[in-house]
Amino acid sequence: MATALARPDLISLAAGFTDHDSLPVKEAREVLLELLGTEAEARAALQYGTTTGDPTLRELTADRIRTLDRASPSTAYPAERVLVTNGSQQLLYMLTEALCDPGDLVLVEDPTYFVYLSILQSHGIQARGIRMETDGIDVAHLETTLKRLKSEGLLPRLKLFYVVSYHQNPAGITTSFEKKRAALHLLGGCERAAGHPIYLLEDAAYRELRFAGEDVKSALAAGESRDRIIYAGTYSKPFATGIRIGFGLVPAPVLQVLLRIKGNHDFGSSNLLQRLLARAISSGSYGRHLEELRRRYASKASVMGRALGAEMPDGVRWQEPRGGLYYWASFPQSISTGMNSKLFQAALRQKVLYVPGQLCYAGDPTRRKPNREMRLSFGAESETNLQEGIGRLAAALRQVQGKRARKLKTSRNSDRR
Amino acid sequence: MATALARPDLISLAAGFTDHDSLPVKEAREVLLELLGTEAEARAALQYGTTTGDPTLRELTADRIRTLDRASPSTAYPAERVLVTNGSQQLLYMLTEALCDPGDLVLVEDPTYFVYLSILQSHGIQARGIRMETDGIDVAHLETTLKRLKSEGLLPRLKLFYVVSYHQNPAGITTSFEKKRAALHLLGGCERAAGHPIYLLEDAAYRELRFAGEDVKSALAAGESRDRIIYAGTYSKPFATGIRIGFGLVPAPVLQVLLRIKGNHDFGSSNLLQRLLARAISSGSYGRHLEELRRRYASKASVMGRALGAEMPDGVRWQEPRGGLYYWASFPQSISTGMNSKLFQAALRQKVLYVPGQLCYAGDPTRRKPNREMRLSFGAESETNLQEGIGRLAAALRQVQGKRARKLKTSRNSDRR
Repeated sequence: MATALARPDLISLAAGFTDHDSLPVKEAREVLLELLGTEAEARAALQYGTTTGDPTLRELTADRIRTLDRASPSTAYPAERVLVTNGSQQLLYMLTEALCDPGDLVLVEDPTYFVYLSILQSHGIQARGIRMETDGIDVAHLETTLKRLKSEGLLPRLKLFYVVSYHQNPAGITTSFEKKRAALHLLGGCERAAGHPIYLLEDAAYRELRFAGEDVKSALAAGESRDRIIYAGTYSKPFATGIRIGFGLVPAPVLQVLLRIKGNHDFGSSNLLQRLLARAISSGSYGRHLEELRRRYASKASVMGRALGAEMPDGVRWQEPRGGLYYWASFPQSISTGMNSKLFQAALRQKVLYVPGQLCYAGDPTRRKPNREMRLSFGAESETNLQEGIGRLAAALRQVQGKRARKLKTSRNSDRR
Repeated sequence: MATALARPDLISLAAGFTDHDSLPVKEAREVLLELLGTEAEARAALQYGTTTGDPTLRELTADRIRTLDRASPSTAYPAERVLVTNGSQQLLYMLTEALCDPGDLVLVEDPTYFVYLSILQSHGIQARGIRMETDGIDVAHLETTLKRLKSEGLLPRLKLFYVVSYHQNPAGITTSFEKKRAALHLLGGCERAAGHPIYLLEDAAYRELRFAGEDVKSALAAGESRDRIIYAGTYSKPFATGIRIGFGLVPAPVLQVLLRIKGNHDFGSSNLLQRLLARAISSGSYGRHLEELRRRYASKASVMGRALGAEMPDGVRWQEPRGGLYYWASFPQSISTGMNSKLFQAALRQKVLYVPGQLCYAGDPTRRKPNREMRLSFGAESETNLQEGIGRLAAALRQVQGKRARKLKTSRNSDRR
């Protein structure tokens, strides 16, 4: 695979990179010129900041989430609870360090963001998967899982439920507000038996990359359980991934612990990057770039969708995403997609790469990991390459199926929208 | 203390901040304009990079350390072993995660960088202090400590020896090349009993901030034990602390583990900052700024030195630093300097802050932590404030001593140079 990745002619539908041509060169240049144009401001940007983060960026961030949630200024979104991190990834990592011990349990979506599984594994923490429906987590499955944990006496080990709530990585699903509220309610009901808070970790990394449909309120809008919600977001993907700045809106007691950890990690993210973003946001340049980015991803998503429709044989299914960077395609029973599968190897020979779905499932002794799905990213490659990539993937599939499947050009996929 | 820190009239001789007026505004502006002036380069800077770091910066870094060590191009400084991190702090953190388990032992200097003690503590790792002499670690004490650990059967728990080898934080001491070599030899001799490698972690954060005397070669120049040396450095302090970029030159097997951890932390430091630094280094702007910075710190150090000489009574001792940001002053037996001491409180009332020496010592059941030293930073405050700050500190001391000590203006300090 390393060999394959080094090949310039490889089309990667695997990387979660963002669109290269859309990167905000003009915007970044303007903002940086302004920022470094005033001596005093420039110096402040080039000096250490605080561990919590730049005050202006924290204000803007709290305000931004509140506005997205259509909430009136209230105590749910205080800037004092915002922590700025090196991408939202660092927040996920530190939270796991802060809240979990080896041997603990964390609930995740099934499938979920595979790097988070790796974080859990590296800390000796078990992940349990909660099934997904087209509008997010399967609340009934969450309930039976919690009941089972309770009866097994395992609730004291349960620390949090990790939900990638918008245009989920990998499956593209958005969890409805009602389901988030229901989850909070169920988790709250377990705290007595657990003997400690059980947090909902809402990873909203893809929230702003919505290109169809309405925005969904975050769990913070539920109000009543605010002190059990950790909201993780990022400015990297919606603006520029080379600027690694994410953030969390975090309950006060958790923030205290995170600050100690962040003090040990790096005592604060780069002030220059933080001030760059604060200026981009307040000048409106961030917002304008985001609009452009949404148009671009909408177009790329539809190119990939059309290519899938044109190239994939019957039995391959997917759901049209409304945001984010990914399609999640599932294949007929006879086709495996894992790293050692014939399809993966054939795809490599065809010079196209995808993320095997298997990587996105928590280990679970009671089942084999599903092995017939794949994550296809439309973020990084050009529209031409997206078409070509799906074509190659279809060719790989035909090779594996040992026959030229008829190309069916009509919609045949019950759950496409 | 939080109250005190919020006061604008407080003079902080505690913060490890760098000189505000010296921050490279012009240089950063020029480099960023160039960098963002070319579409292709700008896009690359604004996109995700790799977890290991920007290849150009890694090349430049390997080259730079090699040049500092006056070594011929050789296998000791391969760019492939350079990992770019969010300040050298992140490297220290990840290394501790990579190499140590809870209950393990790490040797540190006595005193040492207090944030590293905090990293160890947060991972449940015990630190043991190795005494210091004016030219660095006390090799005889290292030897007896290792012997004791061996006889106690504790060598299997010993993973590394952390040495801040240049203009040490907090004591300003530089460890000679011969002593580093001797330490490597002693550590190597324990590996058989330990059953694993024992690394020398050389933290060279202050190496480039040398303003007097000759540079000392790093442990890497010792050659024979190269695969047991981890060299940690930073570009933040010598250039701009708002640009949080550090690095490590790391043996291959350790690098593999670090890459997994870095992948979980943040999958790579900001590409924009890395490319900014790579350009600053290759254009010579980094080097020119460093020269300016050295002149500035030399002047500030001498201002603080003169103020100490003029203001401090007999019995207060310090050593003139040759680089870095700190004086380390020790007080007579009767004076405590800790957070709860009369002196610390009196200093707060006088509106001057220092780092109590106590914080810089590893816990050790066989002794009480030394409590009559302090770290005084000349990095952040202006020369006027440095003078004023030392004046305030002397006033606080007089208050505590309950008498107006005569100001002795002549040198009285045997170990001043």
